[in-house]
Amino acid sequence: MITLLTDFGTADYFVGAMKGVILSIDAEARIFDITHEIPAYDIAAGAFTLLAAYQSFPTNTIHVAVVDPGVGSERRPVLVSSDSYFFVGPDNGLFSYIFERETSCRVYHLTNEGYFRHPVSPTFHGRDIFASIAGALSTGVKPDLLGSEIKDFITLAPLATRVSEDGTIEARIIHIDHYGNCITNLTRDVFTDEMIAGSASLQVGDHAISSFRQFFAETNASSNELFCFWGSAGFLEIAAFRASAAKILSVERGHTAIVAGLKSITCHP
Amino acid sequence: MITLLTDFGTADYFVGAMKGVILSIDAEARIFDITHEIPAYDIAAGAFTLLAAYQSFPTNTIHVAVVDPGVGSERRPVLVSSDSYFFVGPDNGLFSYIFERETSCRVYHLTNEGYFRHPVSPTFHGRDIFASIAGALSTGVKPDLLGSEIKDFITLAPLATRVSEDGTIEARIIHIDHYGNCITNLTRDVFTDEMIAGSASLQVGDHAISSFRQFFAETNASSNELFCFWGSAGFLEIAAFRASAAKILSVERGHTAIVAGLKSITCHP
Amino acid sequence: MITLLTDFGTADYFVGAMKGVILSIDAEARIFDITHEIPAYDIAAGAFTLLAAYQSFPTNTIHVAVVDPGVGSERRPVLVSSDSYFFVGPDNGLFSYIFERETSCRVYHLTNEGYFRHPVSPTFHGRDIFASIAGALSTGVKPDLLGSEIKDFITLAPLATRVSEDGTIEARIIHIDHYGNCITNLTRDVFTDEMIAGSASLQVGDHAISSFRQFFAETNASSNELFCFWGSAGFLEIAAFRASAAKILSVERGHTAIVAGLKSITCHP
Repeated sequence: MITLLTDFGTADYFVGAMKGVILSIDAEARIFDITHEIPAYDIAAGAFTLLAAYQSFPTNTIHVAVVDPGVGSERRPVLVSSDSYFFVGPDNGLFSYIFERETSCRVYHLTNEGYFRHPVSPTFHGRDIFASIAGALSTGVKPDLLGSEIKDFITLAPLATRVSEDGTIEARIIHIDHYGNCITNLTRDVFTDEMIAGSASLQVGDHAISSFRQFFAETNASSNELFCFWGSAGFLEIAAFRASAAKILSVERGHTAIVAGLKSITCHP
Repeated sequence: MITLLTDFGTADYFVGAMKGVILSIDAEARIFDITHEIPAYDIAAGAFTLLAAYQSFPTNTIHVAVVDPGVGSERRPVLVSSDSYFFVGPDNGLFSYIFERETSCRVYHLTNEGYFRHPVSPTFHGRDIFASIAGALSTGVKPDLLGSEIKDFITLAPLATRVSEDGTIEARIIHIDHYGNCITNLTRDVFTDEMIAGSASLQVGDHAISSFRQFFAETNASSNELFCFWGSAGFLEIAAFRASAAKILSVERGHTAIVAGLKSITCHP
Repeated sequence: MITLLTDFGTADYFVGAMKGVILSIDAEARIFDITHEIPAYDIAAGAFTLLAAYQSFPTNTIHVAVVDPGVGSERRPVLVSSDSYFFVGPDNGLFSYIFERETSCRVYHLTNEGYFRHPVSPTFHGRDIFASIAGALSTGVKPDLLGSEIKDFITLAPLATRVSEDGTIEARIIHIDHYGNCITNLTRDVFTDEMIAGSASLQVGDHAISSFRQFFAETNASSNELFCFWGSAGFLEIAAFRASAAKILSVERGHTAIVAGLKSITCHP
């Protein structure tokens, strides 16, 4: 079973070509799209979406992820092998959050060109290296035949929030979804039920969000009221009732969100 | 065989996560997208698209449909079982037009949490309830193991046109498609060949459309001429030659369309 | 194995209905989307994308392509059978570039209505003729049972560049992709390494592009610098570093691109 996650869009031949290459190697491969609408060149956005989706798939699924502004350059093509999954793509940080979540990752620099599609286009490794390698893995080729293990793979800034000496929790918006919900990097172990039950609020720009909900329809239809909830990817999200929280907040991915009002609360991150 | 129809868009991890959950339960499941671009929260739009697509699929297909603004609230998750198909989704009217078309529907309130994915996110029943239930159905679990039958399920306003005492047929635009064609709820048994051969026209706002065509290329390329034709979903549609009828008419879904010029015609709706 | 390429978009029931019809005929069919976002009615755009994708798929794949402004009119539904692939769609030029690439094409006018889905909607041959025929082919029905061979099929203007008597190479932009890269119809046999190593440049409107790169990241991040590279579909492309070349050039598909500066170079097209 193979999944695809790219920033290729779906209007071109790119995704079709990747599927064709996989099927030409393993005619029985089953291929599922996660998304092809990662914002162009946005590695961190790709890393988040991969993180949120990969564990839903069965063990041994091969996840191919290609957000690859450095395609053709010295950046290395890699295979990441964890206890449960394979990941194939560029060594540019795209698998950072997988490294944080999966404890036993081995990373292989893909050097065995015998498993590439030739000629290798310097601008479409998605087809000629990553899809081709995924096809090979799908037919049972072992990782150590595809390249050699490396330890100096690239990682992005950690997904964790920062806690300053005075206990301030500095979070950030790591994703904005289809509905305009803003996903932060706050998790339940950092932003505790005790804080939520207390006077904690989330400060995003000029907005202080102090309302916490279990689900969307719990709110009144009073437009533009912002509230927080625990989202389906395990992170605290900011939403508005049938409206885009991102628009109301005028924020983009990466924006800071400070947990305020914690003075009287013991913070144990 | 399982289909998916949602308002989740395709840019996020939502659809991938649903597929992963299904495949984790039934690795042999075959999953096909109908669309994930139902306008956000637009239950009636989802109901129409499901109606137009479901019968193309083989008998016993499991159709999962999720347009679910009430997710997490008291609205019930349901399974609809007809003679030929299964439908899984929220009890909010999304299956209304299926109830009109399929005569022998049984509706089950999905209460057996043993078939849910846990923990159930209060904001993503698409993954944790509906995909999970579809996977169970796909492996052969019987409906009466999943919950108990209910009779008080929710329905939208009927799809039928209204005919007033003076014989006026009041139709409405139930969908606007990718090309800007406006699909009405007029069917051949209401808007008869006799009417079309007569002086009947369709009044939409300030526009009276009296031209009827068999297909698009039949028209001259004179821009902005509006015409009607019998669309592929069985309803009368309004189109323009290589242009958006919806833009020319300045209408949205739900707009009224009156059948005019019927004075001399016996109307037998 | 069946692929789909259309201008139907993915928001409607159209694609789902096509898949359902195929699966109703051959429940084991494996269906893969190339794209459904060909610009509406743009036959040449569809022809290019089909050209760029089809060879990635295994031998015997059935490619269904539907960009069909003449649906319902006298334009013929056809099956193209080459040594390696089948192609199903309208006879309107959509398969022109396949005819150029595949040397042994036989073209059949699909006339055997026994293999159509009935009633045939005059506006949705994608479902009622092309998907239905693809399903039949997938179950092993032979082309000569589906219709009779024709020789007068429609073709678009050839994909080749024009070379004038004075040696000027007149190319054109045949596609603009998701990233705004402009794909020309220049190939390596026309636009030779010798020319590139010489003083040749590409003139597009007011812009003269004389920079040639192997891949994107090779350039400096100086915004808006345009450069050429050999793209993954085998054609010369114009790009800019993380920016849309099409926007910088203000061009659309079909725009002319002249190869300039060839005076001192022997041109052997």
